[in-house]
Amino acid sequence: MRPVVESLEESRIREVANAGMGRKDVLRFWFGESDEVTPEFIRDAAIASLNAGETFYAHNLGLPELRHAIAGYTHSLHPQQPTDHWFDRIAVSSGGVNGLMLASQTLVEAGDEVVVVTPAWPNLVAQPQIMGARVRTVPLTVAANGAWVLDLQALLAAVTPATRLLIVNAPNNPTGWTLSRPEQQAILDHCRRTGTWILADEVYERLYYAGDSANGAAPSFLDVAGPDDRLIVAHSFSKSFLMTGWRLGWLVLPPALTHAVGKLIEFNTSCAPVFVQRAATVALQRGDEVTPALVKHLQACRDTLVPLLQAVPGVTLANPNGGMYAFFRLEGHDDCLDAAKRLVREAGLGLAPGSAFGPEAAGWLRWCFASRDLHRLEQGVERLRGWLEGRPGL
Amino acid sequence: MRPVVESLEESRIREVANAGMGRKDVLRFWFGESDEVTPEFIRDAAIASLNAGETFYAHNLGLPELRHAIAGYTHSLHPQQPTDHWFDRIAVSSGGVNGLMLASQTLVEAGDEVVVVTPAWPNLVAQPQIMGARVRTVPLTVAANGAWVLDLQALLAAVTPATRLLIVNAPNNPTGWTLSRPEQQAILDHCRRTGTWILADEVYERLYYAGDSANGAAPSFLDVAGPDDRLIVAHSFSKSFLMTGWRLGWLVLPPALTHAVGKLIEFNTSCAPVFVQRAATVALQRGDEVTPALVKHLQACRDTLVPLLQAVPGVTLANPNGGMYAFFRLEGHDDCLDAAKRLVREAGLGLAPGSAFGPEAAGWLRWCFASRDLHRLEQGVERLRGWLEGRPGL
Repeated sequence: MRPVVESLEESRIREVANAGMGRKDVLRFWFGESDEVTPEFIRDAAIASLNAGETFYAHNLGLPELRHAIAGYTHSLHPQQPTDHWFDRIAVSSGGVNGLMLASQTLVEAGDEVVVVTPAWPNLVAQPQIMGARVRTVPLTVAANGAWVLDLQALLAAVTPATRLLIVNAPNNPTGWTLSRPEQQAILDHCRRTGTWILADEVYERLYYAGDSANGAAPSFLDVAGPDDRLIVAHSFSKSFLMTGWRLGWLVLPPALTHAVGKLIEFNTSCAPVFVQRAATVALQRGDEVTPALVKHLQACRDTLVPLLQAVPGVTLANPNGGMYAFFRLEGHDDCLDAAKRLVREAGLGLAPGSAFGPEAAGWLRWCFASRDLHRLEQGVERLRGWLEGRPGL
Repeated sequence: MRPVVESLEESRIREVANAGMGRKDVLRFWFGESDEVTPEFIRDAAIASLNAGETFYAHNLGLPELRHAIAGYTHSLHPQQPTDHWFDRIAVSSGGVNGLMLASQTLVEAGDEVVVVTPAWPNLVAQPQIMGARVRTVPLTVAANGAWVLDLQALLAAVTPATRLLIVNAPNNPTGWTLSRPEQQAILDHCRRTGTWILADEVYERLYYAGDSANGAAPSFLDVAGPDDRLIVAHSFSKSFLMTGWRLGWLVLPPALTHAVGKLIEFNTSCAPVFVQRAATVALQRGDEVTPALVKHLQACRDTLVPLLQAVPGVTLANPNGGMYAFFRLEGHDDCLDAAKRLVREAGLGLAPGSAFGPEAAGWLRWCFASRDLHRLEQGVERLRGWLEGRPGL
């Protein structure tokens, strides 16, 4: 096989999950998904489609009905932009990750330089590597209170005319860091000068708790960029609509790229299943029944977990403004992969090791707080405390 | 965008389909799918899974239950191979095309030489190009009776130690050409000497009408190769189980590659939906209720269509032993893209132009004969006749 494929890291999260095999009572906070089933009315739309026999190939770019629904949704989040150009900029992908891979295939070829802001979801680094790119990372830095912050000048210095693509995920998995509007504007202005494409992974846009925006959502590059800027934004139904397992997402593209991405979809997955797209269409049409309550609940999860964690001796973390993760430093456990494996084996607590997201996050642990039952979060903190105090049997 | 992405051809089949927009009575034989809905018991398995709330992320390589079912299915088709090694060689993909793309990502990097036997499904040429490979094609040749045949010596001469990967689709879309067991053995022996990987697209394996094999299936590279040969075989639920729109397939891999392909799945689609995998598991478990009757019906379709076409003046075609296409030369219509567009506009007959599958197939047309209603095939031939005779309104 190709050396680059061999060198790609296996997910360290899966390594931890494997370490917990055979232990039944594990509290699993390691994966980035809620433990809540997709709402029934969304599942019912897929079932109705299956019953109606919609089991055939469909448009590469997605059902027109779904693309229109996404265009309307996009307009509702970015009302200051012209209303009539979104449809032609939407490509439906087989999951957010698939959209991001399509973006790398569209833009990146062997030898290109790609800059990624880290810590980040490991897929963002792996995808351009699969396309043969040289990836450079620009790490966020840690403030005294445990918040991860962007050194904007360092990022701008790292992006030069030799940089083909800049990949940024904000609100960020795992750190919860978000980009401000002025930072987005500065990055866009800089990339316009260097001719660098921006690939913005904004799948956590709606999971934002700062309360400082009119629509409740995190700042988006779509608010500052025009349709013809070198910008691709990746979205997903997974997080905001409780649809992780459905594998559906979308890209917002400059209109000049949409046709090319449609061709690439043909060569990657051809299309997403119609019955999955019907469910997603209903999810958008009735999104008000899902996302606001979900965000409110996630905020309650965050507000339950974070103070409890902050009170644990040796734990450092700042309150995240976005996403669905508490990302904390655990003093004395720089080998966080080992700590995560021991936590699952010895205390039945399933967390993701920070090192899965970049070397700068060694010593950190990621806790997905998307839990239906707030009590599970409290139980988890008790297990962490007990383990730290040498009472792993707790 | 990357020049190679820009240069990828848009599907000429879609160009023809677009030419037919607005005409309602088109008989559509252009896409490679049956007009039969997926059997109800398969759809019911997906519905039961959705009702049970299986809406979460799943294993990269596929549900163990499904991989076991595929392993058992593979063993039933290749009983002479050891029974206990299939499971570790199976990776579930989001469609056959996605499996083929994963194979290119696993094996091919920029500058590699890839040989493809053509005419072929255009995706087979595009995928290694997306990975930056230089693709050389080895065209089949046409016998006097209109059959497409392999010049084995020409193929072996084209594959040298500089050839990283050989891609073969047999039974072939669009020509119906199939590989014989001795040809497969000769190709494998040669590739063992040159160190070339073989990527065999065998999705039409079960749609085989020659009646010369014990299990009814077409010859497979899995019958002649060992588990550690440089061979990847791509399969799909689309054709043999009437599940085109579900986007599910699988790869059979050397065991040493399975782990790497699992990583690539994480970075491409992460996993296939559980409810889709449940449907596929039931499709395999109760495959005897689907595939044999389907193959029998497709044979009836072929035996209806081919003689009717052969009787049309100017048409040349041989009876295909495999697949679900009648691929015929139409005298005087070397610009088959134009002919296909005119046929749809003027006669309401939707066929795929041969040039979509390689320049050597200019002047040919592909007719997918997977039609529930045999009368539609007869109607289609009448429309072709009428159009050729200048009675397009027929």
